[in-house]
Amino acid sequence: MKITLLDGNIINYDQPKSVLEVAQEISKSLGKKCVGAVINDKEVVPNTALIDRDCKLQLITERHELYESVINYTAKVIVGLALKEIFPEGSLYPEEEGYNKLEFFSYFDCDQKLTLENIKKVEELSNKYISLALDIEFKGNTFTEKDYINMMNKMNVKEKYTMGMVDLNKKRYIKFPISAIKDVLFYSRFATLNKTSDLFKIQLNEVTAFQIREDKFVYKIHGLTATTEKAFLEKQQKIEEIKENDHKHIAKILEIYHLDPLIGQGLPIWLPNGTILKQEIKKYLMQKEFEYDFIQIETPVIGTSELYKTSGHWDHYRDDMFAPMLLPKEEMVLKPMSCPHHIAVYKYKQRSYRDLPLRFAEHALQHRYESSGSLTGLERVRAMELTDSHIFVTPQQVKEEFVRCFNLITEVLLTFDIKVDYLSLSLRDPKDKEKYFNDEKMWNHAETELENVLNELKIDYKKMIGEAAFYGPKLDIQAKTALGHEITVSTIQLDFLLPQRFDISYINSDGELEKPIMIHRGLVGTYERFISVLLEQTKGVLPLWCSPLQVEIIPVNIANKDYAEKVRDAFKAKLIRSKIDLRDERLSYKIRDSQVRKIPYQLVLGEKESENETVTFRKYGSEQQTTVSLKEFIKMIEGKIIDKE
Amino acid sequence: MKITLLDGNIINYDQPKSVLEVAQEISKSLGKKCVGAVINDKEVVPNTALIDRDCKLQLITERHELYESVINYTAKVIVGLALKEIFPEGSLYPEEEGYNKLEFFSYFDCDQKLTLENIKKVEELSNKYISLALDIEFKGNTFTEKDYINMMNKMNVKEKYTMGMVDLNKKRYIKFPISAIKDVLFYSRFATLNKTSDLFKIQLNEVTAFQIREDKFVYKIHGLTATTEKAFLEKQQKIEEIKENDHKHIAKILEIYHLDPLIGQGLPIWLPNGTILKQEIKKYLMQKEFEYDFIQIETPVIGTSELYKTSGHWDHYRDDMFAPMLLPKEEMVLKPMSCPHHIAVYKYKQRSYRDLPLRFAEHALQHRYESSGSLTGLERVRAMELTDSHIFVTPQQVKEEFVRCFNLITEVLLTFDIKVDYLSLSLRDPKDKEKYFNDEKMWNHAETELENVLNELKIDYKKMIGEAAFYGPKLDIQAKTALGHEITVSTIQLDFLLPQRFDISYINSDGELEKPIMIHRGLVGTYERFISVLLEQTKGVLPLWCSPLQVEIIPVNIANKDYAEKVRDAFKAKLIRSKIDLRDERLSYKIRDSQVRKIPYQLVLGEKESENETVTFRKYGSEQQTTVSLKEFIKMIEGKIIDKE
Repeated sequence: MKITLLDGNIINYDQPKSVLEVAQEISKSLGKKCVGAVINDKEVVPNTALIDRDCKLQLITERHELYESVINYTAKVIVGLALKEIFPEGSLYPEEEGYNKLEFFSYFDCDQKLTLENIKKVEELSNKYISLALDIEFKGNTFTEKDYINMMNKMNVKEKYTMGMVDLNKKRYIKFPISAIKDVLFYSRFATLNKTSDLFKIQLNEVTAFQIREDKFVYKIHGLTATTEKAFLEKQQKIEEIKENDHKHIAKILEIYHLDPLIGQGLPIWLPNGTILKQEIKKYLMQKEFEYDFIQIETPVIGTSELYKTSGHWDHYRDDMFAPMLLPKEEMVLKPMSCPHHIAVYKYKQRSYRDLPLRFAEHALQHRYESSGSLTGLERVRAMELTDSHIFVTPQQVKEEFVRCFNLITEVLLTFDIKVDYLSLSLRDPKDKEKYFNDEKMWNHAETELENVLNELKIDYKKMIGEAAFYGPKLDIQAKTALGHEITVSTIQLDFLLPQRFDISYINSDGELEKPIMIHRGLVGTYERFISVLLEQTKGVLPLWCSPLQVEIIPVNIANKDYAEKVRDAFKAKLIRSKIDLRDERLSYKIRDSQVRKIPYQLVLGEKESENETVTFRKYGSEQQTTVSLKEFIKMIEGKIIDKE
Repeated sequence: MKITLLDGNIINYDQPKSVLEVAQEISKSLGKKCVGAVINDKEVVPNTALIDRDCKLQLITERHELYESVINYTAKVIVGLALKEIFPEGSLYPEEEGYNKLEFFSYFDCDQKLTLENIKKVEELSNKYISLALDIEFKGNTFTEKDYINMMNKMNVKEKYTMGMVDLNKKRYIKFPISAIKDVLFYSRFATLNKTSDLFKIQLNEVTAFQIREDKFVYKIHGLTATTEKAFLEKQQKIEEIKENDHKHIAKILEIYHLDPLIGQGLPIWLPNGTILKQEIKKYLMQKEFEYDFIQIETPVIGTSELYKTSGHWDHYRDDMFAPMLLPKEEMVLKPMSCPHHIAVYKYKQRSYRDLPLRFAEHALQHRYESSGSLTGLERVRAMELTDSHIFVTPQQVKEEFVRCFNLITEVLLTFDIKVDYLSLSLRDPKDKEKYFNDEKMWNHAETELENVLNELKIDYKKMIGEAAFYGPKLDIQAKTALGHEITVSTIQLDFLLPQRFDISYINSDGELEKPIMIHRGLVGTYERFISVLLEQTKGVLPLWCSPLQVEIIPVNIANKDYAEKVRDAFKAKLIRSKIDLRDERLSYKIRDSQVRKIPYQLVLGEKESENETVTFRKYGSEQQTTVSLKEFIKMIEGKIIDKE
């Protein structure tokens, strides 16, 4: 039996050895550090697993990328045991990934409502299992049916307890890795530590629910664990940081949006602050689009199902669409994309080459039926407003128009100081004739042009072969969220297909009909997602010009109320958004509270200010207080708003 | 037999007399002018009808309000005959009103597609009937079944030809007024002239279709007729004027909106020009709302059916709503109104008396499933954006808030110079206990306050008892369209009910929970309807500030193109919307065309202008040409835009 190690060394054995034995024989310290192994680059097994045939073996120690996963999976197994003990009528819900490097998640399907309160008992019991130092025993991964049943009977397991699904009827030999704690068998998908006491502690932090049927929820329990106190505290701090950077947390403090189940899942309401933020951004984007010669249009948010049959969305995209409305004379659907609507505007009259490029822009509301489990704050929603555009060009105009779109996007992202992760150029796989729209010449021309442009502009990008859309190549601008999700902020996509499907044309300079090429352009994606990125990247400290409240006016006491109102009215006349804090609280509390809400400017107005028509201001994040005349202050704020500082 | 005339005179007869005989006996000239009569203020009969019992009799002559209706009904009967002759498989569609003072309408249900082209044959045949001077004979209005069948048999009518429905099985005596032309019997709903030749001419102007089932249309034929050439020409001119003032006609010239059946009926697309107009108006309205301390919010365009069950819309308003979307876990509907959504924002946190009045404004898209026959351009649509607001107040704040809303509305309508027809104050009928929300004290208080306010403001209004909404009294501001439809432009409505249904509250100054009152406020109604009114009242000559294209630049020849572009760029930098007309057309044509499209300013740029950096401009509607420096011109335009001149 030949075992090939990661460094290439080969060890020979005459008889089966456990992973731990192999590690211990290599070195005593490795034996202490090892928590499991990866066999042949795919199967992850615990230390107690026996190796009985030739294989490649990676031992998992602290430096291995799966180390934290093993720790987290162990906690997940222990919590599973505790859940079944406390809520025997519930069942563990099988899922693909129940852990990441930081947290682990237990999914539990239960009629009783799980809350952070009643889950505390589960946490206590889990930690009791840790203190009892129970063995987590690997029973092997191949059994005959008889052996398996014997094993179960011997262990007196009344209920089939599985982390996954063991289907006894399917195979004569049961090919599942099985482990046990406290005589309870479970389907072991992954390596675990040897003893429950190898963990320092388990902490359950959050319970979220997602609907799988009407009135039927599955609960997701978010937990934290580590093998040492030090590691545990470090993880705790990291989670706190991520939470603070999560747009959901920031948006709550700033009162940006609200979700109401009676209105519907994944349908954010823009609260007054969120509405100002969104509308200020929109004003700016539309002004930029005016500068770049885009033409605004507004199209309905619904369309007939016939429209989407013509576009092909009905066949290829239907699962992501809301169900149709069945009306007496027609069938209508919420639009998942605006392309067909913009084509209708193109088609509304015969176009000529003189009209091209024709740049329709729409900040367009669209609806997609995302699964309820995937809905995340503003990041993943069911109703979204896309900063959309469809540009109709001749083949000769593709390159120049692509550059124009790219410049517009760059200018806008710079204004918001958005940190871009990377750019990806998605091209077709020329070998895959099935997957892509069949026009070899068009593809070659377009792909070469896009690459040339990016090289000319000296832009770094990742080339993704085989990642193009069916209808054409595209460039995506990618960013990362606080939770590590990768998202597309902006996109430019070429489309050869829709002009054919809708049979649109322009009259060329020879008086003949030709097909235009369409460019789909997402300027900053959807407002929902863009604002989630903006909140995370700014940590809620929004630029002055789009900040919902720009100036907080804090009178020192009620005697200064009249002057405070005068100041507010002067701001209002200049469209500066301010508010007087007249709450019955101490001055220091109000100042602190205004900082928590990240208001760009604080004015403290006392007797001196009232007498001299001055204001004493403090900028967010600075301790410095400056006194200037009201006039000067207004001029300064107006200047900063215009300059989008 | 006693006949009482309109002037109170009574005539006695021993035996039955026809209407015509009565008229002739009064005076010879009356006999010539009379075209029918109204019996006992309800039954309208032709001259040949026999009067055989005591009755009140109004003779219909030119001065009578029904005179034009008799003329038009006669034409309708003749066209019906011609339609059945030319399209024997079709049938006349029974309808309530088939004529107004100006036009008559024939409704025809036919598998063949009717167009203005193939309807020309109907027009020809109708005019042939006129030239044949056929008798239109009144056969009476009460027959025994036997007499009726005999009459039909004798007249050799193969097919039962009815303008209405004659049900032979229902009654022993057939109580229908029956007339005949050319041996064809028809159900005569109204008075007709005696002979087809009493009409001067019939002209069929338009065919429209409305869907009654999938793939099933009913055609509406618009026709014009008169008894003399002079009257005919006058009517023709009037129709032309109305058409020119109709927003559908104006919107076509200005390229405001487009309807596409593949997107759906009654769902206007805002074309580039329409979008600018709409967005400029929106910018202005939102700025006014900012001044009046309204707070913008944005809420989803859909909601769960549960939401609308709670609000009561599901029970009382469902026929006007789009069909629900049946999703695996929920049932969603397009929102017909935003009230429940705004209540969700109110409810999002506990409110206190310090927060009130809380003025949520939303320019909110909503959908109503209007019947396809009623859809009219932008005036009646299925998707509409309402300039909506819901204000939450304490009972003590109702009066002041009502005045604030009224002032805002007045200021806005004055800016657009909208001609108001009248104001209507809708109050409850205190005797009708069923129809109105039951809170006597609340009603008395609110109604008295509203009346007092209007009287204090010295505003004229019509008091409509029994016209209040179920939930409270309201004030509507009414206007009239070019076609004479009466529409509500703005509205202020009190609502005592929804706060109860959704159980919302605020903490009063004593720390107790109280119910707020809601005020629904429609600022200018929907953008769709408001723009239709604006187009009609301005005849398409829009104010400069919201005009889609503000300046048309016409270079005298291609040599002036560079300067024209320089001028355009200078405009663009100041956000002035301009366009260069580079078409290969004569200068005079371009100037005329720009007038047709009602562009506020025309610049003609020749050599002199290029050299001196000047512009020669002409204002729409004026012949005067003025030359000023480019700088001066820009300053002037900017000033006019800011002042909303």
